Amino acid sequence: MEGNMLVTGTNRGIGLELVKQLAETTGEEAHIYACCREPEAATAKDLRDLSTQYPGQITIIKLDTSDEKSICAAVKAVSEQVGSGGLNLLVNNAAINIPAQPAPMSATNKQHMMDVYETNVVGPFLLAKMFLPLLQRAAESHSPDKDKGEEMSCRRSAIINISTLLSSIEKCPETFPMAQMYSYRSSKAALNMLTRCQAEDLKVHNILVAAIHPGWVQTDMGGEEAPLSTHDSVLGMLAVMSSLSQKDCGRLLDWQGNRIPW
Amino acid sequence: MEGNMLVTGTNRGIGLELVKQLAETTGEEAHIYACCREPEAATAKDLRDLSTQYPGQITIIKLDTSDEKSICAAVKAVSEQVGSGGLNLLVNNAAINIPAQPAPMSATNKQHMMDVYETNVVGPFLLAKMFLPLLQRAAESHSPDKDKGEEMSCRRSAIINISTLLSSIEKCPETFPMAQMYSYRSSKAALNMLTRCQAEDLKVHNILVAAIHPGWVQTDMGGEEAPLSTHDSVLGMLAVMSSLSQKDCGRLLDWQGNRIPW
Repeated sequence: MEGNMLVTGTNRGIGLELVKQLAETTGEEAHIYACCREPEAATAKDLRDLSTQYPGQITIIKLDTSDEKSICAAVKAVSEQVGSGGLNLLVNNAAINIPAQPAPMSATNKQHMMDVYETNVVGPFLLAKMFLPLLQRAAESHSPDKDKGEEMSCRRSAIINISTLLSSIEKCPETFPMAQMYSYRSSKAALNMLTRCQAEDLKVHNILVAAIHPGWVQTDMGGEEAPLSTHDSVLGMLAVMSSLSQKDCGRLLDWQGNRIPW
Repeated sequence: MEGNMLVTGTNRGIGLELVKQLAETTGEEAHIYACCREPEAATAKDLRDLSTQYPGQITIIKLDTSDEKSICAAVKAVSEQVGSGGLNLLVNNAAINIPAQPAPMSATNKQHMMDVYETNVVGPFLLAKMFLPLLQRAAESHSPDKDKGEEMSCRRSAIINISTLLSSIEKCPETFPMAQMYSYRSSKAALNMLTRCQAEDLKVHNILVAAIHPGWVQTDMGGEEAPLSTHDSVLGMLAVMSSLSQKDCGRLLDWQGNRIPW
Protein backbone atom coordinates (compact mmCIF):
# COMPACT_ATOMS: atom_id res chain seq x y z
CA MET A 1 0.00 0.00 0.00
CA GLU A 2 1.11 3.56 -0.58
CA GLY A 3 -0.06 7.15 -0.92
CA ASN A 4 -2.62 8.92 1.28
CA MET A 5 -4.99 6.63 3.11
CA LEU A 6 -7.94 7.38 5.37
CA VAL A 7 -9.52 4.87 7.75
CA THR A 8 -12.62 5.47 9.92
CA GLY A 9 -13.31 4.00 13.37
CA THR A 10 -9.62 3.64 14.26
CA ASN A 11 -9.63 3.92 18.04
CA ARG A 12 -9.99 0.15 18.50
CA GLY A 13 -10.49 -3.24 16.91
CA ILE A 14 -10.01 -3.69 13.20
CA GLY A 15 -9.62 0.04 12.53
CA LEU A 16 -6.76 0.42 15.02
CA GLU A 17 -5.03 -2.68 13.64
CA LEU A 18 -5.42 -1.38 10.07
CA VAL A 19 -3.61 1.83 11.03
CA LYS A 20 -0.91 -0.15 12.87
CA GLN A 21 -0.15 -2.52 9.99
CA LEU A 22 -0.34 0.26 7.41
CA ALA A 23 2.17 2.28 9.44
CA GLU A 24 4.45 -0.76 9.86
CA THR A 25 4.50 -1.66 6.18
CA THR A 26 4.68 1.76 4.57
CA GLY A 27 7.37 4.41 4.81
CA GLU A 28 7.46 8.17 4.61
CA GLU A 29 6.00 8.18 1.10
CA ALA A 30 2.67 7.12 2.65
CA HIS A 31 0.42 8.92 5.09
CA ILE A 32 -2.39 7.54 7.19
CA TYR A 33 -5.38 9.63 8.28
CA ALA A 34 -6.79 7.82 11.28
CA CYS A 35 -10.32 8.97 12.06
CA CYS A 36 -12.29 8.55 15.24
CA ARG A 37 -15.12 10.36 16.99
CA GLU A 38 -13.26 11.38 20.12
CA PRO A 39 -9.48 11.53 19.63
CA GLU A 40 -8.98 13.12 23.06
CA ALA A 41 -10.97 10.52 25.00
CA ALA A 42 -9.59 7.66 27.07
CA THR A 43 -11.03 5.27 24.47
CA ALA A 44 -8.55 6.63 21.89
CA LYS A 45 -5.39 6.24 24.01
CA ASP A 46 -4.09 3.27 21.99
CA LEU A 47 -4.48 5.25 18.78
CA ARG A 48 -2.65 8.25 20.24
CA ASP A 49 0.17 5.98 21.43
CA LEU A 50 0.39 4.41 17.98
CA SER A 51 0.61 7.77 16.24
CA THR A 52 3.44 8.75 18.61
CA GLN A 53 5.34 5.60 17.59
CA TYR A 54 5.18 6.59 13.92
CA PRO A 55 5.82 10.32 13.89
CA GLY A 56 5.02 11.97 10.57
CA GLN A 57 3.18 8.89 9.26
CA ILE A 58 -0.15 9.10 11.09
CA THR A 59 -2.51 12.07 11.46
CA ILE A 60 -5.43 11.59 13.82
CA ILE A 61 -8.61 13.24 12.53
CA LYS A 62 -11.68 13.95 14.63
CA LEU A 63 -14.63 12.63 12.64
CA ASP A 64 -18.24 11.80 13.36
CA THR A 65 -19.36 10.03 10.18
CA SER A 66 -23.00 10.76 10.92
CA ASP A 67 -22.43 14.53 10.93
CA GLU A 68 -22.09 16.24 7.54
CA LYS A 69 -20.36 19.26 9.13
CA SER A 70 -17.80 17.00 10.82
CA ILE A 71 -17.07 15.26 7.50
CA CYS A 72 -16.76 18.65 5.81
CA ALA A 73 -14.14 19.72 8.35
CA ALA A 74 -12.25 16.42 7.92
CA VAL A 75 -12.22 16.83 4.13
CA LYS A 76 -10.81 20.34 4.53
CA ALA A 77 -8.08 19.19 6.93
CA VAL A 78 -7.05 16.26 4.74
CA SER A 79 -7.24 18.31 1.54
CA GLU A 80 -4.80 20.87 2.90
CA GLN A 81 -2.28 18.16 3.82
CA VAL A 82 -2.46 15.94 0.75
CA GLY A 83 -2.30 18.75 -1.80
CA SER A 84 -2.27 17.68 -5.44
CA GLY A 85 -1.71 14.02 -4.55
CA GLY A 86 -5.30 13.66 -3.38
CA LEU A 87 -6.59 10.72 -1.35
CA ASN A 88 -5.67 7.27 -2.65
CA LEU A 89 -7.63 5.07 -0.29
CA LEU A 90 -10.78 5.52 1.80
CA VAL A 91 -11.57 2.64 4.16
CA ASN A 92 -15.07 2.83 5.66
CA ASN A 93 -14.54 0.71 8.75
CA ALA A 94 -16.59 2.50 11.45
CA ALA A 95 -19.69 0.46 12.29
CA ILE A 96 -21.99 -0.28 15.18
CA ASN A 97 -24.23 -3.16 16.17
CA ILE A 98 -27.19 -2.50 18.47
CA PRO A 99 -28.93 -4.06 20.25
CA ALA A 100 -26.32 -6.56 21.47
CA GLN A 101 -26.28 -10.05 19.97
CA PRO A 102 -28.27 -12.17 19.23
CA ALA A 103 -30.55 -9.14 18.62
CA PRO A 104 -33.84 -10.88 17.81
CA MET A 105 -36.77 -9.02 16.25
CA SER A 106 -38.47 -8.64 19.61
CA ALA A 107 -35.47 -6.81 21.12
CA THR A 108 -34.96 -4.49 18.15
CA ASN A 109 -36.79 -1.17 17.93
CA LYS A 110 -37.04 1.75 15.54
CA GLN A 111 -34.17 3.67 17.10
CA HIS A 112 -31.83 0.66 16.78
CA MET A 113 -32.72 0.27 13.10
CA MET A 114 -32.19 3.97 12.37
CA ASP A 115 -28.97 4.39 14.38
CA VAL A 116 -27.30 1.35 12.85
CA TYR A 117 -28.21 2.46 9.33
CA GLU A 118 -26.93 5.96 10.03
CA THR A 119 -23.49 4.74 11.08
CA ASN A 120 -23.09 1.67 8.87
CA VAL A 121 -24.55 2.98 5.58
CA VAL A 122 -25.19 6.72 5.60
CA GLY A 123 -21.71 7.41 7.05
CA PRO A 124 -19.93 5.50 4.25
CA PHE A 125 -22.26 7.11 1.68
CA LEU A 126 -21.45 10.62 2.90
CA LEU A 127 -17.72 9.96 3.18
CA ALA A 128 -17.52 8.70 -0.39
CA LYS A 129 -19.57 11.63 -1.64
CA MET A 130 -17.61 14.27 0.22
CA PHE A 131 -14.13 12.82 -0.30
CA LEU A 132 -14.85 12.18 -3.98
CA PRO A 133 -12.96 15.28 -5.21
CA LEU A 134 -9.85 14.10 -3.34
CA LEU A 135 -10.24 10.54 -4.65
CA GLN A 136 -10.61 11.89 -8.19
CA ARG A 137 -7.53 14.03 -7.70
CA ALA A 138 -5.55 10.93 -6.70
CA ALA A 139 -6.89 8.92 -9.64
CA GLU A 140 -5.91 11.69 -12.05
CA SER A 141 -2.50 12.43 -10.59
CA HIS A 142 -1.42 8.80 -10.47
CA SER A 143 1.21 8.45 -13.15
CA PRO A 144 0.64 5.61 -15.63
CA ASP A 145 4.36 4.71 -15.30
CA LYS A 146 3.91 3.84 -11.65
CA ASP A 147 0.79 1.91 -12.54
CA LYS A 148 2.39 -1.20 -14.02
CA GLY A 149 -0.48 -1.11 -16.47
CA GLU A 150 -3.12 -1.14 -13.74
CA GLU A 151 -6.20 0.90 -14.57
CA MET A 152 -7.53 0.59 -11.04
CA SER A 153 -5.93 -0.29 -7.73
CA CYS A 154 -5.91 0.64 -4.04
CA ARG A 155 -2.61 2.42 -4.76
CA ARG A 156 -4.24 4.66 -7.36
CA SER A 157 -7.70 5.48 -5.91
CA ALA A 158 -10.15 3.24 -4.08
CA ILE A 159 -13.00 2.99 -1.62
CA ILE A 160 -13.12 -0.12 0.57
CA ASN A 161 -16.31 -0.67 2.56
CA ILE A 162 -15.89 -3.09 5.46
CA SER A 163 -18.87 -5.41 5.22
CA THR A 164 -19.57 -8.82 6.75
CA LEU A 165 -20.57 -12.37 5.88
CA LEU A 166 -23.83 -11.54 7.69
CA SER A 167 -24.58 -9.08 4.85
CA SER A 168 -25.12 -11.97 2.45
CA ILE A 169 -28.85 -12.43 1.80
CA GLU A 170 -28.00 -15.69 0.02
CA LYS A 171 -26.18 -17.06 3.09
CA CYS A 172 -28.82 -15.84 5.56
CA PRO A 173 -30.44 -19.26 6.11
CA GLU A 174 -27.02 -20.59 7.22
CA THR A 175 -26.02 -17.67 9.42
CA PHE A 176 -29.36 -16.54 10.87
CA PRO A 177 -29.70 -19.16 13.62
CA MET A 178 -26.44 -18.10 15.30
CA ALA A 179 -26.98 -14.33 15.04
CA GLN A 180 -30.31 -12.77 14.10
CA MET A 181 -29.12 -9.17 14.21
CA TYR A 182 -31.89 -7.62 12.10
CA SER A 183 -30.59 -4.06 12.32
CA TYR A 184 -26.98 -4.99 11.52
CA ARG A 185 -27.78 -7.39 8.67
CA SER A 186 -30.19 -4.97 7.00
CA SER A 187 -27.62 -2.19 7.18
CA LYS A 188 -24.82 -4.31 5.75
CA ALA A 189 -26.95 -5.59 2.84
CA ALA A 190 -27.61 -1.92 2.07
CA LEU A 191 -23.86 -1.24 2.31
CA ASN A 192 -23.26 -3.94 -0.30
CA MET A 193 -25.75 -2.23 -2.60
CA LEU A 194 -24.02 1.08 -1.95
CA THR A 195 -20.69 -0.54 -2.85
CA ARG A 196 -22.07 -1.89 -6.11
CA CYS A 197 -23.65 1.47 -7.03
CA GLN A 198 -20.44 3.34 -6.27
CA ALA A 199 -18.43 0.83 -8.31
CA GLU A 200 -20.64 1.48 -11.34
CA ASP A 201 -20.73 5.21 -10.73
CA LEU A 202 -17.03 5.82 -10.17
CA LYS A 203 -15.42 3.47 -12.69
CA VAL A 204 -15.39 6.33 -15.19
CA HIS A 205 -13.01 8.11 -12.78
CA ASN A 206 -10.84 4.97 -12.39
CA ILE A 207 -11.82 4.72 -8.73
CA LEU A 208 -12.02 1.13 -7.53
CA VAL A 209 -14.81 0.26 -5.05
CA ALA A 210 -15.15 -3.06 -3.23
CA ALA A 211 -16.48 -4.52 0.03
CA ILE A 212 -14.49 -6.79 2.33
CA HIS A 213 -15.63 -9.20 5.05
CA PRO A 214 -12.95 -9.19 7.78
CA GLY A 215 -13.89 -12.63 9.08
CA TRP A 216 -15.28 -13.35 12.50
CA VAL A 217 -12.76 -11.42 14.54
CA GLN A 218 -11.87 -11.16 18.23
CA THR A 219 -13.06 -7.60 18.78
CA ASP A 220 -15.58 -5.96 21.10
CA MET A 221 -18.18 -6.69 18.44
CA GLY A 222 -17.00 -10.18 17.49
CA GLY A 223 -16.56 -11.42 21.04
CA GLU A 224 -13.86 -13.58 22.61
CA GLU A 225 -15.01 -16.83 21.03
CA ALA A 226 -14.24 -15.54 17.53
CA PRO A 227 -11.74 -17.79 15.72
CA LEU A 228 -9.69 -15.05 14.04
CA SER A 229 -7.30 -12.57 15.65
CA THR A 230 -7.51 -8.92 14.65
CA HIS A 231 -3.89 -9.22 13.47
CA ASP A 232 -4.56 -12.08 11.05
CA SER A 233 -7.77 -10.54 9.76
CA VAL A 234 -6.07 -7.26 8.93
CA LEU A 235 -3.02 -9.01 7.46
CA GLY A 236 -5.37 -10.86 5.14
CA MET A 237 -7.47 -7.82 4.25
CA LEU A 238 -4.42 -5.72 3.39
CA ALA A 239 -3.10 -8.51 1.15
CA VAL A 240 -6.49 -8.63 -0.57
CA MET A 241 -6.63 -4.84 -0.93
CA SER A 242 -3.11 -4.82 -2.44
CA SER A 243 -4.17 -7.34 -5.06
CA LEU A 244 -7.46 -5.70 -6.09
CA SER A 245 -7.85 -4.72 -9.71
CA GLN A 246 -10.58 -3.70 -12.15
CA LYS A 247 -12.12 -7.18 -12.18
CA ASP A 248 -12.84 -6.95 -8.42
CA CYS A 249 -14.79 -3.72 -8.75
CA GLY A 250 -18.16 -3.92 -7.00
CA ARG A 251 -17.46 -7.31 -5.43
CA LEU A 252 -17.76 -8.58 -1.85
CA LEU A 253 -14.65 -10.55 -0.88
CA ASP A 254 -13.56 -12.09 2.39
CA TRP A 255 -10.20 -11.45 4.10
CA GLN A 256 -8.75 -14.33 2.09
CA GLY A 257 -9.94 -12.98 -1.25
CA ASN A 258 -12.87 -15.40 -1.71
CA ARG A 259 -16.06 -14.01 -3.22
CA ILE A 260 -19.18 -13.98 -1.08
CA PRO A 261 -22.57 -14.12 -2.86
CA TRP A 262 -24.98 -11.23 -2.38
CA MET B 1 -57.17 -14.77 -1.56
CA GLU B 2 -59.23 -14.91 1.60
CA GLY B 3 -59.31 -14.05 5.29
CA ASN B 4 -58.17 -10.80 6.90
CA MET B 5 -55.71 -8.81 4.84
CA LEU B 6 -53.87 -5.58 5.59
CA VAL B 7 -52.18 -3.41 2.97
CA THR B 8 -50.14 -0.24 3.63
CA GLY B 9 -49.91 2.85 1.41
CA THR B 10 -53.35 2.32 -0.16
CA ASN B 11 -54.40 5.87 -1.06
CA ARG B 12 -52.92 5.61 -4.57
CA GLY B 13 -50.93 3.59 -7.08
CA ILE B 14 -50.25 -0.07 -6.44
CA GLY B 15 -51.69 -0.02 -2.91
CA LEU B 16 -55.04 1.36 -4.07
CA GLU B 17 -55.22 -1.15 -6.93
CA LEU B 18 -54.39 -4.01 -4.54
CA VAL B 19 -57.35 -3.05 -2.35
CA LYS B 20 -59.60 -2.72 -5.43
CA GLN B 21 -58.75 -6.11 -6.90
CA LEU B 22 -58.87 -7.82 -3.52
CA ALA B 23 -62.35 -6.37 -2.94
CA GLU B 24 -63.48 -7.41 -6.43
CA THR B 25 -62.27 -10.98 -6.12
CA THR B 26 -63.19 -11.79 -2.53
CA GLY B 27 -66.56 -11.90 -0.87
CA GLU B 28 -67.88 -11.31 2.61
CA GLU B 29 -65.66 -14.04 4.08
CA ALA B 30 -62.70 -11.73 3.47
CA HIS B 31 -61.90 -8.34 4.94
CA ILE B 32 -59.40 -5.75 3.76
CA TYR B 33 -57.70 -3.29 6.10
CA ALA B 34 -56.57 -0.46 3.85
CA CYS B 35 -53.97 1.70 5.59
CA CYS B 36 -52.84 5.19 4.71
CA ARG B 37 -51.34 8.14 6.56
CA GLU B 38 -54.18 10.59 6.04
CA PRO B 39 -57.53 8.89 5.38
CA GLU B 40 -59.38 12.22 5.66
CA ALA B 41 -57.18 14.11 3.18
CA ALA B 42 -58.00 14.91 -0.45
CA THR B 43 -55.21 12.50 -1.45
CA ALA B 44 -57.27 9.60 -0.05
CA LYS B 45 -60.53 10.41 -1.86
CA ASP B 46 -60.19 7.48 -4.30
CA LEU B 47 -59.70 5.09 -1.40
CA ARG B 48 -62.74 6.44 0.44
CA ASP B 49 -64.83 6.09 -2.73
CA LEU B 50 -63.63 2.52 -3.17
CA SER B 51 -64.53 1.57 0.39
CA THR B 52 -68.03 2.98 -0.19
CA GLN B 53 -68.41 0.72 -3.24
CA TYR B 54 -67.65 -2.37 -1.15
CA PRO B 55 -69.52 -1.82 2.11
CA GLY B 56 -68.47 -4.22 4.85
CA GLN B 57 -65.45 -5.46 2.91
CA ILE B 58 -62.97 -2.61 3.40
CA THR B 59 -61.94 -0.83 6.60
CA ILE B 60 -59.73 2.21 6.19
CA ILE B 61 -57.09 2.47 8.91
CA LYS B 62 -55.06 5.58 9.70
CA LEU B 63 -51.44 4.46 9.86
CA ASP B 64 -48.08 6.17 9.78
CA THR B 65 -45.65 3.25 9.45
CA SER B 66 -42.77 5.32 10.82
CA ASP B 67 -44.58 5.95 14.12
CA GLU B 68 -44.60 3.10 16.65
CA LYS B 69 -47.60 4.62 18.46
CA SER B 70 -49.57 4.83 15.24
CA ILE B 71 -48.81 1.17 14.48
CA CYS B 72 -49.80 0.25 18.02
CA ALA B 73 -53.20 1.91 17.53
CA ALA B 74 -53.68 0.15 14.18
CA VAL B 75 -52.87 -3.24 15.73
CA LYS B 76 -55.44 -2.60 18.45
CA ALA B 77 -58.14 -1.56 15.96
CA VAL B 78 -57.51 -4.56 13.68
CA SER B 79 -57.21 -6.97 16.60
CA GLU B 80 -60.66 -6.01 17.90
CA GLN B 81 -62.26 -6.60 14.49
CA VAL B 82 -60.55 -9.83 13.46
CA GLY B 83 -61.00 -11.61 16.77
CA SER B 84 -59.73 -15.19 16.91
CA GLY B 85 -59.23 -15.34 13.14
CA GLY B 86 -56.15 -13.13 13.35
CA LEU B 87 -54.50 -11.47 10.37
CA ASN B 88 -53.84 -13.71 7.38
CA LEU B 89 -51.91 -11.37 5.15
CA LEU B 90 -49.75 -8.29 5.71
CA VAL B 91 -48.65 -6.48 2.55
CA ASN B 92 -45.94 -3.88 3.16
CA ASN B 93 -46.49 -1.68 0.14
CA ALA B 94 -45.93 1.87 1.47
CA ALA B 95 -42.66 3.25 0.13
CA ILE B 96 -41.04 6.51 -0.85
CA ASN B 97 -38.31 7.58 -3.23
CA ILE B 98 -36.45 10.81 -2.57
CA PRO B 99 -34.79 12.71 -4.12
CA ALA B 100 -36.63 12.40 -7.45
CA GLN B 101 -35.09 10.26 -10.19
CA PRO B 102 -32.39 9.83 -11.40
CA ALA B 103 -31.19 10.66 -7.86
CA PRO B 104 -27.43 10.66 -8.35
CA MET B 105 -24.98 10.62 -5.43
CA SER B 106 -24.42 14.36 -5.66
CA ALA B 107 -28.16 15.13 -5.23
CA THR B 108 -28.65 12.72 -2.32
CA ASN B 109 -28.06 13.86 1.25
CA LYS B 110 -28.19 12.38 4.72
CA GLN B 111 -31.85 13.23 5.27
CA HIS B 112 -32.88 11.51 2.03
CA MET B 113 -31.00 8.36 3.02
CA MET B 114 -32.54 8.31 6.50
CA ASP B 115 -36.12 9.15 5.45
CA VAL B 116 -36.21 6.53 2.70
CA TYR B 117 -34.86 3.85 5.05
CA GLU B 118 -37.37 4.80 7.71
CA THR B 119 -40.35 4.34 5.38
CA ASN B 120 -39.09 1.52 3.16
CA VAL B 121 -37.39 -0.70 5.75
CA VAL B 122 -38.08 0.33 9.33
CA GLY B 123 -41.83 0.61 8.62
CA PRO B 124 -42.09 -2.96 7.28
CA PHE B 125 -39.86 -4.18 10.15
CA LEU B 126 -42.10 -2.58 12.78
CA LEU B 127 -45.32 -3.72 11.13
CA ALA B 128 -44.18 -7.34 11.02
CA LYS B 129 -42.98 -7.15 14.61
CA MET B 130 -46.13 -5.55 15.97
CA PHE B 131 -48.65 -7.51 13.89
CA LEU B 132 -46.83 -10.78 14.64
CA PRO B 133 -49.28 -11.88 17.38
CA LEU B 134 -52.19 -11.47 14.92
CA LEU B 135 -50.29 -13.29 12.16
CA GLN B 136 -49.50 -16.13 14.58
CA ARG B 137 -53.15 -16.26 15.61
CA ALA B 138 -54.14 -16.68 11.95
CA ALA B 139 -51.51 -19.35 11.35
CA GLU B 140 -52.70 -21.31 14.39
CA SER B 141 -56.43 -20.97 13.76
CA HIS B 142 -56.22 -21.99 10.11
CA SER B 143 -57.85 -25.40 9.92
CA PRO B 144 -55.76 -28.09 8.22
CA ASP B 145 -58.92 -29.21 6.38
CA LYS B 146 -59.15 -25.94 4.53
CA ASP B 147 -55.43 -26.09 3.89
CA LYS B 148 -55.42 -28.64 1.06
CA GLY B 149 -52.22 -29.91 2.63
CA GLU B 150 -50.47 -26.53 2.45
CA GLU B 151 -48.16 -25.82 5.35
CA MET B 152 -47.74 -22.21 4.32
CA SER B 153 -49.76 -19.90 2.09
CA CYS B 154 -51.02 -16.33 1.79
CA ARG B 155 -54.44 -17.72 2.82
CA ARG B 156 -53.03 -19.06 6.09
CA SER B 157 -50.55 -16.40 7.27
CA ALA B 158 -48.04 -14.38 5.28
CA ILE B 159 -46.00 -11.20 5.02
CA ILE B 160 -45.40 -9.82 1.53
CA ASN B 161 -42.84 -7.05 1.23
CA ILE B 162 -43.14 -5.04 -1.99
CA SER B 163 -39.58 -4.76 -3.28
CA THR B 164 -38.20 -3.84 -6.70
CA LEU B 165 -35.87 -5.08 -9.42
CA LEU B 166 -33.66 -2.14 -8.40
CA SER B 167 -33.09 -3.95 -5.08
CA SER B 168 -31.01 -6.59 -6.85
CA ILE B 169 -27.31 -6.03 -6.12
CA GLU B 170 -26.52 -8.65 -8.77
CA LYS B 171 -28.50 -6.75 -11.45
CA CYS B 172 -27.14 -3.32 -10.41
CA PRO B 173 -24.67 -3.00 -13.31
CA GLU B 174 -27.60 -3.43 -15.74
CA THR B 175 -30.06 -1.12 -13.98
CA PHE B 176 -27.79 1.57 -12.55
CA PRO B 177 -27.29 3.67 -15.71
CA MET B 178 -31.04 4.33 -16.09
CA ALA B 179 -31.76 5.07 -12.41
CA GLN B 180 -29.02 5.67 -9.85
CA MET B 181 -31.34 6.14 -6.88
CA TYR B 182 -28.81 5.47 -4.12
CA SER B 183 -31.25 5.98 -1.24
CA TYR B 184 -34.00 3.84 -2.76
CA ARG B 185 -31.75 0.98 -3.90
CA SER B 186 -29.95 0.78 -0.55
CA SER B 187 -33.27 0.67 1.30
CA LYS B 188 -34.71 -2.04 -0.93
CA ALA B 189 -31.61 -4.25 -0.66
CA ALA B 190 -32.06 -3.94 3.11
CA LEU B 191 -35.74 -4.84 2.70
CA ASN B 192 -34.71 -8.02 0.88
CA MET B 193 -32.45 -8.91 3.80
CA LEU B 194 -35.30 -8.20 6.19
CA THR B 195 -37.54 -10.50 4.13
CA ARG B 196 -35.00 -13.31 4.24
CA CYS B 197 -34.47 -12.90 8.01
CA GLN B 198 -38.21 -12.89 8.68
CA ALA B 199 -38.66 -15.97 6.48
CA GLU B 200 -36.10 -17.85 8.58
CA ASP B 201 -37.43 -16.46 11.83
CA LEU B 202 -41.14 -17.07 11.27
CA LYS B 203 -41.15 -20.44 9.50
CA VAL B 204 -41.51 -22.12 12.88
CA HIS B 205 -44.89 -20.33 13.16
CA ASN B 206 -45.89 -21.38 9.60
CA ILE B 207 -45.85 -17.75 8.49
CA LEU B 208 -44.75 -17.35 4.89
CA VAL B 209 -42.56 -14.34 4.04
CA ALA B 210 -41.60 -13.26 0.53
CA ALA B 211 -40.73 -10.15 -1.48
CA ILE B 212 -42.34 -9.19 -4.79
CA HIS B 213 -41.22 -6.83 -7.53
CA PRO B 214 -44.34 -5.24 -9.06
CA GLY B 215 -42.64 -4.46 -12.37
CA TRP B 216 -42.01 -1.00 -13.73
CA VAL B 217 -45.47 0.42 -13.24
CA GLN B 218 -47.31 3.55 -14.37
CA THR B 219 -47.59 5.23 -10.97
CA ASP B 220 -46.46 8.56 -9.54
CA MET B 221 -43.17 6.84 -8.71
CA GLY B 222 -42.82 4.82 -11.93
CA GLY B 223 -43.70 7.66 -14.27
CA GLU B 224 -45.81 7.72 -17.44
CA GLU B 225 -43.26 5.97 -19.63
CA ALA B 226 -43.49 2.77 -17.55
CA PRO B 227 -44.54 -0.20 -19.70
CA LEU B 228 -46.90 -1.85 -17.19
CA SER B 229 -50.32 -0.65 -16.04
CA THR B 230 -51.10 -0.72 -12.33
CA HIS B 231 -53.97 -3.08 -13.16
CA ASP B 232 -51.79 -5.69 -14.87
CA SER B 233 -49.06 -5.46 -12.23
CA VAL B 234 -51.50 -6.08 -9.40
CA LEU B 235 -53.30 -8.84 -11.34
CA GLY B 236 -49.95 -10.57 -11.72
CA MET B 237 -48.86 -10.02 -8.12
CA LEU B 238 -52.12 -11.38 -6.70
CA ALA B 239 -51.80 -14.49 -8.90
CA VAL B 240 -48.23 -14.94 -7.62
CA MET B 241 -49.30 -14.41 -4.00
CA SER B 242 -52.10 -16.98 -4.40
CA SER B 243 -49.63 -19.57 -5.64
CA LEU B 244 -46.94 -19.05 -2.99
CA SER B 245 -46.00 -22.04 -0.85
CA GLN B 246 -43.26 -23.11 1.52
CA LYS B 247 -40.66 -23.37 -1.27
CA ASP B 248 -41.05 -19.64 -2.02
CA CYS B 249 -40.30 -18.59 1.53
CA GLY B 250 -37.62 -15.88 1.67
CA ARG B 251 -37.52 -15.41 -2.10
CA LEU B 252 -37.73 -12.30 -4.29
CA LEU B 253 -40.12 -12.88 -7.19
CA ASP B 254 -41.41 -10.58 -9.89
CA TRP B 255 -45.11 -10.02 -10.70
CA GLN B 256 -44.95 -12.98 -13.10
CA GLY B 257 -43.44 -15.32 -10.52
CA ASN B 258 -39.88 -15.28 -11.85
CA ARG B 259 -37.08 -15.29 -9.29
CA ILE B 260 -34.80 -12.26 -9.12
CA PRO B 261 -31.24 -12.78 -7.84
CA TRP B 262 -30.17 -10.90 -4.71
